Amino acid sequence: MQELSVKHSNGVYSILVGNGLRFKLHEYLKKSYTKVLIISDENVAKYYLEDVKKGLDNFSLASYTIPSGEHSKHIDVYYEIQTRAIEIGMDRNSLIIALGGGVVGDLAGFVAATFMRGIDYIQVPTTILAHDSSVGGKVAINHSLGKNLIGAFYPPVGVFYDMETLTSLSERETRSGYAELIKEALISSEELFYSMIETDLESISTEKLQEYIMAGIRVKQGIVEADEKEHGIRMFLNLGHTLAHALEAELGYGKITHGEAVAIGLLFSIHVSEKVYQKKLPFDRLKGWLVANNYPILSTFDSKEIIKHMKSDKKTIGQQIKMVLMEAPGQLKVEQITDDELNNHLNTFKERLV
Amino acid sequence: MQELSVKHSNGVYSILVGNGLRFKLHEYLKKSYTKVLIISDENVAKYYLEDVKKGLDNFSLASYTIPSGEHSKHIDVYYEIQTRAIEIGMDRNSLIIALGGGVVGDLAGFVAATFMRGIDYIQVPTTILAHDSSVGGKVAINHSLGKNLIGAFYPPVGVFYDMETLTSLSERETRSGYAELIKEALISSEELFYSMIETDLESISTEKLQEYIMAGIRVKQGIVEADEKEHGIRMFLNLGHTLAHALEAELGYGKITHGEAVAIGLLFSIHVSEKVYQKKLPFDRLKGWLVANNYPILSTFDSKEIIKHMKSDKKTIGQQIKMVLMEAPGQLKVEQITDDELNNHLNTFKERLV
Repeated sequence: MQELSVKHSNGVYSILVGNGLRFKLHEYLKKSYTKVLIISDENVAKYYLEDVKKGLDNFSLASYTIPSGEHSKHIDVYYEIQTRAIEIGMDRNSLIIALGGGVVGDLAGFVAATFMRGIDYIQVPTTILAHDSSVGGKVAINHSLGKNLIGAFYPPVGVFYDMETLTSLSERETRSGYAELIKEALISSEELFYSMIETDLESISTEKLQEYIMAGIRVKQGIVEADEKEHGIRMFLNLGHTLAHALEAELGYGKITHGEAVAIGLLFSIHVSEKVYQKKLPFDRLKGWLVANNYPILSTFDSKEIIKHMKSDKKTIGQQIKMVLMEAPGQLKVEQITDDELNNHLNTFKERLV
Repeated sequence: MQELSVKHSNGVYSILVGNGLRFKLHEYLKKSYTKVLIISDENVAKYYLEDVKKGLDNFSLASYTIPSGEHSKHIDVYYEIQTRAIEIGMDRNSLIIALGGGVVGDLAGFVAATFMRGIDYIQVPTTILAHDSSVGGKVAINHSLGKNLIGAFYPPVGVFYDMETLTSLSERETRSGYAELIKEALISSEELFYSMIETDLESISTEKLQEYIMAGIRVKQGIVEADEKEHGIRMFLNLGHTLAHALEAELGYGKITHGEAVAIGLLFSIHVSEKVYQKKLPFDRLKGWLVANNYPILSTFDSKEIIKHMKSDKKTIGQQIKMVLMEAPGQLKVEQITDDELNNHLNTFKERLV
């Protein structure tokens, strides 16, 4: 088992990564919680809910299962979970467990952040993608006008990453999660980036995957510790996300996975970086790897609509779009881009994709 | 003008108390906010919205007016304000102004706490009661199963208390607000308590009122600085509230004002304190003053139902009711009370009221 810890403005929490953790959460819970509510989705509950319950039989347990998918990050689902929490008698000394991927983590975390003004919660991620969302304390639900627009910075009291749960992931979920790992590699170093795209997803070993996940978590940890509330370098984690969020909004959430959108977004960041800094960057290399690994490379979006979505993104200040770019992998910068430039970049990008 | 400041885990904010502050908020806003959204209710907007707008004409302004009353602290109203905020293009560098009483402050503050994971807001209280809710960073909306069950600890960036706005208060609102001032006096000292109930509300001078409000704010400031997240002595501020919240829930919110409920709750705390500590406390003195000042003294509630409500209060941990009691004004303690004892105390209390 591997462990690292994340400091934040009100304390510190541990991230444990290893096999079989889902069976022994009781070993790591430090308080005698009055109630424990496990929130998961239909898919995950089927595989792992009973395992997690087994490891917590000394607690007063309840569970709440949401439909799988992004549409569960809805204010009505949020309110229903609050209702359940009240009805089972949860109080300020109760615990929420987020068992699942990013949707479960974001939603359950936001319930915990706001139930009776905030109670403890832990993240038990079950996807590769959630290595990212489960660390750093960003929790949220969606507004019909935009993703993650209602939320909080509210760190968990622990993250327990059971690598065994990754074995039940579909090909598509693996692809999706790996895109965020590639993002972290691009933030971190050329070495990590090239190492990650040496293997195909089909043939990657569990050991290699755990190694890259740990590397990704370390990148994230370093950044959120330095900038918890996203005033500065936490922006770097947004690499590839300016286009990704806009694509998801334009297509309707759930049409492509978040990670698939990020993959296209990363390519776009590299494309813009090449234009802005006049440098040769690994655009073709990454594109080739994405194609070989069956990522959907969409090139038929409407640039004007995409720009409109970018402007309603919550990272946009005063209608000015800022993008995270790179002079090289590991050397990131944030640049303000005008609408005209952006339109040009989107159009030349689309040509380059086909 | 008087000023004091409140430290919290992520910074510090000022509380300004004086005349005419509503006209000159721009003098105190330190940032160049991209947008400013003023949230107020129908009553307050009628009197003061234009005044506040006048003092902010260098900002890009919008306003949102909610129906007056507790029922506006509803998840639907909360969501609608988020919608408005998104539609007018608010971003992370925008500001929310809570112009009004406790309902507006709690609701607007919770919108600010969760819009794009938290933006700045200021409190511009317009009632006596709001001297309490506007300080300390507790924000919330109600759940249909209980008051303030969904919320956060999220301090404002400033509190601007314009004493002139108190002149438009109804007799009932004055009564309601004064009850929380009496609570703070009971927390603070015998001297302040007896001084406050020497005058009738009808004949109190503006100077005296401002003096008591400042004293109340100082009590609150001292406590929230020592215990921001309510793990210890912040509980003292709950004096009188165990019964008050239960009464409000039992009668339906809005049937009596919060302050009127607190007044009865304070009497109950003194009653229980007398029983528990076997001491003579100013029960009759406070009761006489409340009656003389037209507070409704309800004595017909059902003790069993009241206890049920107390148990679903968010301050209740593991179904055990804790009450804030006093050995004397200024000497507070928190005691756990069994259901049987509570039932007895409620019954003897009702007898003493008639």
